[in-house]
Amino acid sequence: MILGRRKQSTVVNEFSFSDRSQLNNAQRLVIKLGSAVITREDGHGIALGRLASIVEQVAECHQEGRECIMVTSGAVAFGKQKLAHELLMSMSMRETLSPNDHLKKNLAMQLKAAAAVGQSGLMSLYDAMFSQYSIKIAQVLVTKLDFYNEETRTNLFNTLSELISMKIVPIINTNDAVTSQPQGEDHIKSNGKMVFTIKDNDSLAAMLAAEVSADLLILMSDVDGIFTLPPDHEGAKMISTYNTDMADLIQFGKKSSVGTGGMDSKVQAATWALNRGVAVVICNGMQEKAIKSIVQGTQIGTFFTNASTSNNTPVETVAENARSGSRILQKLPPEDRASAINVLADLLISKQAKILEANEKDVAKAMKEGIAASLISRLSLTPSKLKSLAIGLKQIAETSHTNVGKVLKRTKISENLDLTQVTVPIGVLLVIFESRPDCLPQVAALALSSANGLLLKGGKEALHSNKALMDIVKEALATVGAQDAISLVSTREEISDLLAMENHIDLIIPRGSSELVRSIQDQCAHIPVLGHSEGICHVYVDMDADLDKALSIIRDSKCDYPAACNAMETLLIHEGLFEGPFFNEVCDMLKKENVQLFSGPKLSSRLTFGPPQAKSLKHEYGELGCTIELVSGMDSAINHIHAYGSGHTEVIVTENSESATKFQRDVDSACVFHNASSRFADGFRFGLGAEVGISTARIHARGPVGVEGLLTTKWILKGDGHVVSEFVEGGKRTYVHEHLAINN
Amino acid sequence: MILGRRKQSTVVNEFSFSDRSQLNNAQRLVIKLGSAVITREDGHGIALGRLASIVEQVAECHQEGRECIMVTSGAVAFGKQKLAHELLMSMSMRETLSPNDHLKKNLAMQLKAAAAVGQSGLMSLYDAMFSQYSIKIAQVLVTKLDFYNEETRTNLFNTLSELISMKIVPIINTNDAVTSQPQGEDHIKSNGKMVFTIKDNDSLAAMLAAEVSADLLILMSDVDGIFTLPPDHEGAKMISTYNTDMADLIQFGKKSSVGTGGMDSKVQAATWALNRGVAVVICNGMQEKAIKSIVQGTQIGTFFTNASTSNNTPVETVAENARSGSRILQKLPPEDRASAINVLADLLISKQAKILEANEKDVAKAMKEGIAASLISRLSLTPSKLKSLAIGLKQIAETSHTNVGKVLKRTKISENLDLTQVTVPIGVLLVIFESRPDCLPQVAALALSSANGLLLKGGKEALHSNKALMDIVKEALATVGAQDAISLVSTREEISDLLAMENHIDLIIPRGSSELVRSIQDQCAHIPVLGHSEGICHVYVDMDADLDKALSIIRDSKCDYPAACNAMETLLIHEGLFEGPFFNEVCDMLKKENVQLFSGPKLSSRLTFGPPQAKSLKHEYGELGCTIELVSGMDSAINHIHAYGSGHTEVIVTENSESATKFQRDVDSACVFHNASSRFADGFRFGLGAEVGISTARIHARGPVGVEGLLTTKWILKGDGHVVSEFVEGGKRTYVHEHLAINN
Repeated sequence: MILGRRKQSTVVNEFSFSDRSQLNNAQRLVIKLGSAVITREDGHGIALGRLASIVEQVAECHQEGRECIMVTSGAVAFGKQKLAHELLMSMSMRETLSPNDHLKKNLAMQLKAAAAVGQSGLMSLYDAMFSQYSIKIAQVLVTKLDFYNEETRTNLFNTLSELISMKIVPIINTNDAVTSQPQGEDHIKSNGKMVFTIKDNDSLAAMLAAEVSADLLILMSDVDGIFTLPPDHEGAKMISTYNTDMADLIQFGKKSSVGTGGMDSKVQAATWALNRGVAVVICNGMQEKAIKSIVQGTQIGTFFTNASTSNNTPVETVAENARSGSRILQKLPPEDRASAINVLADLLISKQAKILEANEKDVAKAMKEGIAASLISRLSLTPSKLKSLAIGLKQIAETSHTNVGKVLKRTKISENLDLTQVTVPIGVLLVIFESRPDCLPQVAALALSSANGLLLKGGKEALHSNKALMDIVKEALATVGAQDAISLVSTREEISDLLAMENHIDLIIPRGSSELVRSIQDQCAHIPVLGHSEGICHVYVDMDADLDKALSIIRDSKCDYPAACNAMETLLIHEGLFEGPFFNEVCDMLKKENVQLFSGPKLSSRLTFGPPQAKSLKHEYGELGCTIELVSGMDSAINHIHAYGSGHTEVIVTENSESATKFQRDVDSACVFHNASSRFADGFRFGLGAEVGISTARIHARGPVGVEGLLTTKWILKGDGHVVSEFVEGGKRTYVHEHLAINN
Repeated sequence: MILGRRKQSTVVNEFSFSDRSQLNNAQRLVIKLGSAVITREDGHGIALGRLASIVEQVAECHQEGRECIMVTSGAVAFGKQKLAHELLMSMSMRETLSPNDHLKKNLAMQLKAAAAVGQSGLMSLYDAMFSQYSIKIAQVLVTKLDFYNEETRTNLFNTLSELISMKIVPIINTNDAVTSQPQGEDHIKSNGKMVFTIKDNDSLAAMLAAEVSADLLILMSDVDGIFTLPPDHEGAKMISTYNTDMADLIQFGKKSSVGTGGMDSKVQAATWALNRGVAVVICNGMQEKAIKSIVQGTQIGTFFTNASTSNNTPVETVAENARSGSRILQKLPPEDRASAINVLADLLISKQAKILEANEKDVAKAMKEGIAASLISRLSLTPSKLKSLAIGLKQIAETSHTNVGKVLKRTKISENLDLTQVTVPIGVLLVIFESRPDCLPQVAALALSSANGLLLKGGKEALHSNKALMDIVKEALATVGAQDAISLVSTREEISDLLAMENHIDLIIPRGSSELVRSIQDQCAHIPVLGHSEGICHVYVDMDADLDKALSIIRDSKCDYPAACNAMETLLIHEGLFEGPFFNEVCDMLKKENVQLFSGPKLSSRLTFGPPQAKSLKHEYGELGCTIELVSGMDSAINHIHAYGSGHTEVIVTENSESATKFQRDVDSACVFHNASSRFADGFRFGLGAEVGISTARIHARGPVGVEGLLTTKWILKGDGHVVSEFVEGGKRTYVHEHLAINN
């Protein structure tokens, strides 16, 4: 038998995939579309857009070389709609009949008739759609009886495998015109030993998937997945990864509103297929790109696996633990949080051998893969790096005594009614960082210091290093009973899944390249992101500038570290300086530093053989490149900055302090500097202690952000039975609103 | 002629619609799908999902009673795909041929052949799709010659009107198999006097739309609309509303990547139709729900109108003016901003008659419409309301001296390098408010005081009042030369359009019902929203409570103003108090106050005949309703609050100060009160001055927010030629990081 041969000749995981990321290897797919997926909300006619999208995804899978078998509902709905139409048409010819009655009676017509009418229409719709992708389909109508008979069953599977080998997509539907809706407890034998009941299209699809040795079965209906409780119940949680040990955790509710498959039967069908080596995902067919997402390993729907989930805590649970961990940290006296940070600092030294050993594995792998030397140097840990890291941590421990619970405001509202505003942690942070593993203990210390829960998502290039560092973070947390406050999120969790966890994560901090920051900001609609989207920083050289200072500031701003967000991208020069020697000196200096120059339109019009024109005045080079433009004066410089800048950092070079004051007042950027390099825009240089990041947002935190950026406030009111109704005009109490002294 | 008759028998706006909101009245639609819309990205085959969505929208329009005519491209793409398929099939039978060469040669086949092959397939696809909505379609193939001949043209339009009268959707396509791609300057006469060239499907659709007296022509291609410059150019802006006066403003770029219609020819076609009484929208066919959005009046694409745009500034321009207005306000000395607020306060009194007159119009309209008395009282302005408003404004003026430019931090970074952090306005605010027109001058004063630009979007029920109040705001702004800093956004602008203006608006503040706030928060992905999403506030009565205080606090928290977000929704009672008299006293008191009681599961299990069980423990009644639940102690109360609360305001009633401290430390909500009513959670009661709102967000501002919530910060660094490269280890400078005193 063809199917048998395939199984011997290719490597198939007999015990199903243990991990979503492996689903990309699924070669043979059975995709079951429930009637809710395929039917319009009104129950009549096909949901065309949804079907088109599913066909598109199946076509893509097919073109990737996967073998797809579809099990479809929908003939009834198609037929209902078609019959209603025919009846309306005939009605217009018999106008004496009362149209409403006629219609109502006919809308209640037998489902069987509708199925008979709809079958061919549905298939030609599939045919028209798949033909757009040059894919041939085959209609395979089955009845329950076909499965009870060994011979018809064998014929059926032989036909299916022939079709698949001819690159044809079989589309399977129950022949509802001749069979009853399958129900009852008719058991059938499979492979001569198994006992199974085909109750609905879910069990039919599970049976088929097992018989054709599919790698993956996708059951699409109108629920998002399997929940711990019926989804409309309070506290119901979707289970992202299900294994059979979890059966007891689940309480099943009523059936899906459309279709005959309730969730319990879905779980039964899925488990049946799973036990025969087929990975299963139950998902919502209304979700866009569900099939593509599943084969890409994205966490949607419920994934059924035989692999034990014990050392694979769902990320939602990890986040919930971070929240309760944060609450434990908050309750601790500050000395305890400081002590945990000190423990962590000491462990960096005492466990140095283990950390460096893990790091060597990552470095070796990176070198084998031919990663750039600069990246490898970022990835490498050394005893001296660990030592300075430990020193930094001890400093964070020192400052952590006053971070949380600091009184910001005290007001006497009325006699015996006192209001205090105090700092509290934000809650749960997600920090996404690239390559540099030293980021991990640093961020962990900041979270500990500010009593925030923390999820860390590191790059997979630093896998071993991060794991070793996380071990010592957990060890330090354990000394204060808050092991779960900080966790490393496994690399298999997709960032997009994390970004959607708006109920679990309060603030996201991407640390890394500006591409990383930008991509996170673009993807993240519902959780605030702290970071700089772009750093298009300007240096403006005024007519009254000290030109030596200007040269030195320009060199430092552009060349000290061109990849940094606070490096200069555009140099604005007062046009009065164009004729003198300064302009050439600047260009010569920048060229000597290997800076590629581009000119703005105004400069360009003044030069016959100048540098090439900048393609955009709103451009972040992030390397040794720089736009130079002439401006007619300070106002024109400010207008240029407002039109093309990103609100990060701007510099004026001038000896005229009045101009400097005006520039610093009028320029609307996070940092505005006078006679200093743009490179000072940095948390450490600003003296904010450990830097959380630089923000170009206009709310919460702006510019370089220290640990204050990880804090919010809480209002504490102490009264003695005060109620607002006593404060009405002529009431027995009045508002005082007296500011009280703060003694932190 | 039928079309002529229709025009006489129904009211048609001869000069096209002047406003997008009127597009909902468009009865006869011509919808043109460019080939980019209908073709897959690879150019072969139909973009099924997009087509399905367009068919769905056309079907909806049809079912709403609109008459739709479609002009479609796509036959070529369909045919290309189909031919490639056929060739592949025949290839497999002639395997000796080199498949790649064969395929390549055939992919370069003539477009005409492809069109011939694709025509029928495209039509049957349309047919299958429209049949899902019980809609019959008719294929109408036309060639350019059909339009040159008076007789064939008349026949064509008679056929179209017959089809429309039979509720059939005509689908028109050029017969590419027999005609050349239309090009050149062949002019045709229309109505015996007009001269027009059919160059492409855009001009064809425009001609048709004019001939069939369509109300609306929708030209769909792959660009978002008409831009001032080619869309990939810097500074290119999309024009939302185009009138013919604007032709000079536009510079056309190269043609669309697919299809023969460049933007200039689109504008020509649109103008032609417009001049014949057809409203036109040019939009991106890739945009979801484009057709539905257009007929709903949403601002997508470019709307062509003959109406003058002079008194109808685009909202983007209004927002840009608000930003530059904010910058003007920032430059002013604080005395000037204060003075403008005082002028506004005085105008409220001196222009009282005019304001009240306008307000009477709104009130009269509301009463005619039978609006609830409570809403009418919110809408009504009175001399005493205006007087207290003026007093409030004078207070805001008073505090505005120190809002902006306040020094928050000063640090000596190194010798002669000083850093200052000062407060600055956030930028441009959008305040959305309902019914209460007194909100307008109050918010305007807050914006003036904090030097923010402001867009105000009021409810249409207060149209006249808001306009009159805005007039005096503009008058006050004019005294300091900042007329454009604050503007009322016309009611015709859709809120969803405003919420998408992330480059123009920095913070959104919805003021009104919690439904309003929630709906804004849900819709607004990219601009921060300041507001409380829910107020599920708890009062916990501890075992050590003073029970009289408890009764009085519970009454005030629930009954003082049940619609407020700071009203109590859930009462948690220590189970030790269940047996004593207190429990019954509480229930009696609440019942006497007409509060409907619901019990939590634990209370429910203890009562035989108790109140009905609460459907959810996470419920905001917002009226005289309340959930009561028993808890075993403070920890259990805190857990309940964390599980079901919304982080707004929670209260503990206890005489045990240790418990109170623990509760206030451990409960993770914006406001945590001891022995005081939850109703104190309010900006005015907290002594924050004018209240901006209450925030349940965890960043930027939390709890009641005063004017500080409208401010952000800026870092000012003053140096003397400092560069960071001097600060390297062993360099000539070192960091000092000394905190300096603040003298505000």
